Amino acid sequence: MNVLLTCAGRRNYLVKFFQEALKNRGQVFASDFSADAAALQEADKSFVLPLVKQSDYFDKVAQICEEYQIRLLIPLIDLELPLLAKQRERFLKIGTLPVISSPTVVDICYDKWATFEFLSGYGLAVPKTYLSLAEARKALIEGIISFPLMVKPRWGSASVGVVTAEDDDELDIAYRFVSKHIPRTSLADANAIDAQRCILIQERLSGQEHGLDIVNDLEGNHVTTFVKRKLSMVIGETDRAITVEDEKLKELGHVIGQKLGHIGNLDCDVIVNQNGCYVIDMNPRFGGGYPFSHMAGANLPAALIAWANGEKPDMSWLKVEANIMSSKCDRLVTNLRNI
Amino acid sequence: MNVLLTCAGRRNYLVKFFQEALKNRGQVFASDFSADAAALQEADKSFVLPLVKQSDYFDKVAQICEEYQIRLLIPLIDLELPLLAKQRERFLKIGTLPVISSPTVVDICYDKWATFEFLSGYGLAVPKTYLSLAEARKALIEGIISFPLMVKPRWGSASVGVVTAEDDDELDIAYRFVSKHIPRTSLADANAIDAQRCILIQERLSGQEHGLDIVNDLEGNHVTTFVKRKLSMVIGETDRAITVEDEKLKELGHVIGQKLGHIGNLDCDVIVNQNGCYVIDMNPRFGGGYPFSHMAGANLPAALIAWANGEKPDMSWLKVEANIMSSKCDRLVTNLRNI
Repeated sequence: MNVLLTCAGRRNYLVKFFQEALKNRGQVFASDFSADAAALQEADKSFVLPLVKQSDYFDKVAQICEEYQIRLLIPLIDLELPLLAKQRERFLKIGTLPVISSPTVVDICYDKWATFEFLSGYGLAVPKTYLSLAEARKALIEGIISFPLMVKPRWGSASVGVVTAEDDDELDIAYRFVSKHIPRTSLADANAIDAQRCILIQERLSGQEHGLDIVNDLEGNHVTTFVKRKLSMVIGETDRAITVEDEKLKELGHVIGQKLGHIGNLDCDVIVNQNGCYVIDMNPRFGGGYPFSHMAGANLPAALIAWANGEKPDMSWLKVEANIMSSKCDRLVTNLRNI
Repeated sequence: MNVLLTCAGRRNYLVKFFQEALKNRGQVFASDFSADAAALQEADKSFVLPLVKQSDYFDKVAQICEEYQIRLLIPLIDLELPLLAKQRERFLKIGTLPVISSPTVVDICYDKWATFEFLSGYGLAVPKTYLSLAEARKALIEGIISFPLMVKPRWGSASVGVVTAEDDDELDIAYRFVSKHIPRTSLADANAIDAQRCILIQERLSGQEHGLDIVNDLEGNHVTTFVKRKLSMVIGETDRAITVEDEKLKELGHVIGQKLGHIGNLDCDVIVNQNGCYVIDMNPRFGGGYPFSHMAGANLPAALIAWANGEKPDMSWLKVEANIMSSKCDRLVTNLRNI
């Protein structure tokens, strides 16, 4: 069985995790927009592809999948998910299983207002969120929320365009700043969907941030949740984390995984404080937090491969040892290939 | 000979470069504020220290240097440089060579207004820079500069608090945003030195960004310059780069190295366009661009060790092969130590 990781960027660890999980039963391919991407130097074979939003992107991906008999297609960046979600059938027809949720699920996660509505609809705790300055100011006056607030793109990715406001003057600056900033980011197209309502104002909760890997199988049945306490972040990605035993957060993962019915991994961020466990973000893909689960014994690549083969995964792949602390660091890869 | 890398963070590659350069002739120690820092997991021995601005920080560093007979002390973050520069004698007395420039040189690099004045004083090309909104607006009206402009902290580090403005409205937002932002960053103390003149407005030049390692010996004599074309950046650090043969930039490095007389490595950023080679930043330490030189054959750790031993470095350590492209990626390190 061969695996293709798209937009693999600098996630060389995922290339390695899949290579190890395959144990020579297949190859791991990687693609990226840039021939310089580090992951392309270490995959078994690598491809330079157009930007995901270009009209021929999925034709090229499908061509590779057919030619190299790709069984598992693993998208890695937020921008690709809504587009791939609509192409699911096309890939199934050529024998490729895209590890992608339905368009509805992808949209619930990408549109942070939809995330807020989905979660609060099930009575789960979320930060109070507003779609306009006027509504946020009304809530401030009524004492429903208080500073600090976050101003951020409604269709968001990592920490792109996220700004904190500590008082009303800053709220004004932040709102204008984010409005100006969005059209210049990779999020421009997504946020043009509803340009009048594409900025969210949200409570900035204090508390301990946790990361969950909410694992569903390829049919969207919930399987397990790995829980990590985040120790440090770099540009919206987990830089250091420790696995923890936490039944409350595991149960939260269970509820979300069941209700959402996503496919594969859901990277989920939760702030825990004395008032509860507040879900602040969900992304239906391998996130920057997954390797911390892997270092603690999880092996989701092996489980995905087993499911794709119609086999039962080894139960040990779906467990993490608690109290394993890992951190990310830079590694240099020299490009010796002509991709 | 033992080496101590302070505030080593996630620069595990530097720990390894020094370990390899020492070839079992000594040990590489690392310190950081956080016990979770990745570099602390791979150094020969590691230390958790207070924040560099805390009053007992250098007492603790000196204590380690004495106890572990540290010969070379290598600071790695901008915040530490001005403080260590003033403590040079203290370390020399205990037999430790801090690889740090004079307080004057450190200030020329840390204070981006001083950088501008230093470079333009020698007739070198720099982006036009202003210390107030009024002066920048006057220059705009007179047609001396045009948008886009950068608004940034005068005492700066990485891309912290750097904002682009595309028109006058954005210039206003950006200026207010940066003013509000600075006091909340690690740059707060430095920029309090001259709070009325701590924001720079600078031309944002288009062109190809290059990174130089301008290498001086431990007496501040210029030795060589490694030139790299940057291919991609992540939060102000070089993520991908290729070594290039470029006599013009090598000569620029020669002039800067001679005039500045810094100690060891100077990480220098230059934008090259049809009008010239514009120096946009200088930092007198190992920067995020050094490993790209190392991957292409340079071995500055070995040269520093040789100089500290009163030996002549092997000439091959001070050369890079051209056209070597490398990229950074994430690596996971599990903490198995009790530091």
